[in-house]
Amino acid sequence: METDQLILNTKWQGDFVFSAVGQGGHSLTMDAHQGVGKEQGLLPMQALLGSLAGCVGMDVIMILRSKTEEIRSLEIITEGIKRRNPPKEFLSFVVTFVVEGEIAAEQVLHAIEVSGEKYCPVAHSLKADVRYRLVLNGEEASAT
Amino acid sequence: METDQLILNTKWQGDFVFSAVGQGGHSLTMDAHQGVGKEQGLLPMQALLGSLAGCVGMDVIMILRSKTEEIRSLEIITEGIKRRNPPKEFLSFVVTFVVEGEIAAEQVLHAIEVSGEKYCPVAHSLKADVRYRLVLNGEEASAT
Repeated sequence: METDQLILNTKWQGDFVFSAVGQGGHSLTMDAHQGVGKEQGLLPMQALLGSLAGCVGMDVIMILRSKTEEIRSLEIITEGIKRRNPPKEFLSFVVTFVVEGEIAAEQVLHAIEVSGEKYCPVAHSLKADVRYRLVLNGEEASAT
Repeated sequence: METDQLILNTKWQGDFVFSAVGQGGHSLTMDAHQGVGKEQGLLPMQALLGSLAGCVGMDVIMILRSKTEEIRSLEIITEGIKRRNPPKEFLSFVVTFVVEGEIAAEQVLHAIEVSGEKYCPVAHSLKADVRYRLVLNGEEASAT
């Protein structure tokens, strides 16, 4: 099987703060939850939810790219259910696309489905299943 | 089983740029790889590697917290091997701790092992196995 390698450097900044630097020098700063950390960055588990949202979001924009002018806004709500006791891993995910614009629900649902089933490398790297929802112009559109 | 929920909101910023906002209002901005995106943020797969580094890094600092004054610097190099063809998911991970300081290798290795086996929720949320390495003051210390 053909493979590629991706490398990232993350530096400890003191206390519980860690900063990772990615392409273009952009950084991701993380901290422990309140009470342990001082809210100087995202929780690592929030960063994981964000990576999932960015991944499926980019796929959907790519698949719909001839129609993105018709999308006024796109927001992705990523919910993860996690175990309360260690290891507190994610047990399931729900990714809700909240879209405003003059676009057919079927087209957006198709793009989400193709991303989830064939493309999104983050979703495919996770143990737990990901369920997708679409709320288009304030109305729930059910995914197949 | 007792569970908790974690929610994150991510907004599309146009082109392939997405920004997620976490605790304390801190954000994670992501973009597609060069050629598709414009390097306006991390790749989602880089954000995933960063979340893994932050997660095990915080555990190790927590476990070694009475000794962190003896750590001059701590850097975490996260390498992921991913499939070249879709879905380009991660197949394996190597997390290398690069530590400088007057601390015993056994203590750091123990902290890494406890995090990897019992705690780090990001590592436990991933399908692929994670292998850990420690380079202490320029020398490889083998993990058990």
